[in-house]
Amino acid sequence: MRDSIMQAMYVRELGEFGLIERLSKQVAASTSVSQEKSTATTSLTVTIGDDTAAWTVGGVTELLTTDTVVEGVHFTAETSTWKTVGWKCLASNLSDIASMGGTPTFAVVTLGLPEDTLVEDMDNLYTGLLDAATTYGVTIIGGDIVASPVFFMTIAQTGVIEVAPMLRSTARPGDQIAVTGTLGASAAGLAILQGETASDGSDVTSLIETHQRPRPRIGDGQALVKAGVLCAMDVSDGFLSDLRKICIASGHSAHIKAADIPVHPSAIKALPQTALGMALNGGEDYELLFTASPDVIASLQGVLESGFHVIGTITEGESGVVRVVDRDGEPLGIDVQGWDHLKT
Amino acid sequence: MRDSIMQAMYVRELGEFGLIERLSKQVAASTSVSQEKSTATTSLTVTIGDDTAAWTVGGVTELLTTDTVVEGVHFTAETSTWKTVGWKCLASNLSDIASMGGTPTFAVVTLGLPEDTLVEDMDNLYTGLLDAATTYGVTIIGGDIVASPVFFMTIAQTGVIEVAPMLRSTARPGDQIAVTGTLGASAAGLAILQGETASDGSDVTSLIETHQRPRPRIGDGQALVKAGVLCAMDVSDGFLSDLRKICIASGHSAHIKAADIPVHPSAIKALPQTALGMALNGGEDYELLFTASPDVIASLQGVLESGFHVIGTITEGESGVVRVVDRDGEPLGIDVQGWDHLKT
Repeated sequence: MRDSIMQAMYVRELGEFGLIERLSKQVAASTSVSQEKSTATTSLTVTIGDDTAAWTVGGVTELLTTDTVVEGVHFTAETSTWKTVGWKCLASNLSDIASMGGTPTFAVVTLGLPEDTLVEDMDNLYTGLLDAATTYGVTIIGGDIVASPVFFMTIAQTGVIEVAPMLRSTARPGDQIAVTGTLGASAAGLAILQGETASDGSDVTSLIETHQRPRPRIGDGQALVKAGVLCAMDVSDGFLSDLRKICIASGHSAHIKAADIPVHPSAIKALPQTALGMALNGGEDYELLFTASPDVIASLQGVLESGFHVIGTITEGESGVVRVVDRDGEPLGIDVQGWDHLKT
Repeated sequence: MRDSIMQAMYVRELGEFGLIERLSKQVAASTSVSQEKSTATTSLTVTIGDDTAAWTVGGVTELLTTDTVVEGVHFTAETSTWKTVGWKCLASNLSDIASMGGTPTFAVVTLGLPEDTLVEDMDNLYTGLLDAATTYGVTIIGGDIVASPVFFMTIAQTGVIEVAPMLRSTARPGDQIAVTGTLGASAAGLAILQGETASDGSDVTSLIETHQRPRPRIGDGQALVKAGVLCAMDVSDGFLSDLRKICIASGHSAHIKAADIPVHPSAIKALPQTALGMALNGGEDYELLFTASPDVIASLQGVLESGFHVIGTITEGESGVVRVVDRDGEPLGIDVQGWDHLKT
């Protein structure tokens, strides 16, 4: 009895990434068995651990990803409307397709609905969802509706790519590290929606818009692949946390200059004290973080719709270490915080 | 103010199928727009309204379905172990692939986890999930883990088929209606797990096993397609309710002889008063319900691993009407009840 009490461990102690690692090992141990039985028609090329999985079928690479929102965890009535919940849930899936360089195709949508859910709210949810779907060429082809004590929405999204997709594991020492667009706007928008006071005269509309209706970088992802970029992921859990994932997957370190981080100008103006921290650890930016040789990076000038900034380099060194330095080359006093869904 | 109160409608008033119909119309209205933008690489062939969606890519048809379980709604600690929750959630997805005649390939798994979830329980969940995955040749290739006040698990499952899949909409007047295996065992097993008293000396083990670890009819689905069967679906919401879906999708009626329904023998013995009702309306049987010409049906003798019974015919008549008659040809006093996830 005492043994079983001592062994009891809650998932919040492992955290999201600890639990994923643990379950992934169990999956890997059984995968050799199931792959022997699988069809010869499809060939798995990317499995657990990247932004999407991928397999080849008939000469094409198919992509599959899934992303979920839970009311009270990922959004509240204070931070969102039902239209923006629908838009954002699809957009976060599409951002994963973008990070591979793919073209989104189809989605299936699962709704978990409390019994007091209003039909009108679901109409609005679908209006936002379909707005994103038509904007990015996605067709909703099915799903599931179940009763649940809490509202949740899970989307599984497919995509295609005709060449090899970009991965997290292909960063090489000497690569420059770059990011599309700007960082920190989503976290700043969220803070303002939650009641933080913005500086006088600052423009909070674009911050709130970025938080509620992020724009997945589909076209830019495709342009990166075309230019020869091999390594990318999207910034969803937080820039430093996500960069660390690239470093772990690739087995290298990263060196980042804080002064080169493209913090969203309205975030700096509205929340000058916290904007840099939000850019580094805020999350939900849905920009593309990528690495490539200086030549490839140079070839991207003027090519990306959302622009990009070079912010550091991949270095030899311990796997997963990210160093951030200030203007004087001194280590910045900031921790990698990133979003962990289970740790409290 | 009064207007908005009068218009407010809860989803439980529409029910699962009413809400699906409403949202599907919204999807259909926007689909012509998004399809124009979609890639030329893939071509959608089956959309919302069948057991899976389907599209062709490189000469192959890919299938995609999704299914969810919520703790307290679909299972409780009384009716399941974590191992059987993992097995059953994958099996219910695989049953959809089976109903199209396909071969399952890949799955992505989403977990919504309360903070007091035990790691050991998740290990057991994955043991059951992977047991089903290796049994049916599925590889788990990714997923998502989020915090949630209630445990839920959503699986999105892909499959492939080299010919046109079976559909709900292809039943024709004169077709015989048949079902694989037997019906009612899952509902009987659930009733016994929930405390119903079985008759003395009856074997409840197989009933509980059928409820907790259903066997998707993958091989039989493939055999049906090979034999030329065009119309099938799986029995998940309840036999009569599911047959009505075939009748609605095909625009015809059905005539069923209650005496020919293959009620599971242990269910009859354990719960003689309620077994027929459970076979007709119980749900979660995960057998295949199919229709075909008498010649095609005759060719199936000895071919299906789980056997089959002919139980009626598709007739001209009002779309969606299912008539059940007793031995004397008199209408049976039983309603189509089937599972609706939202109606209370």
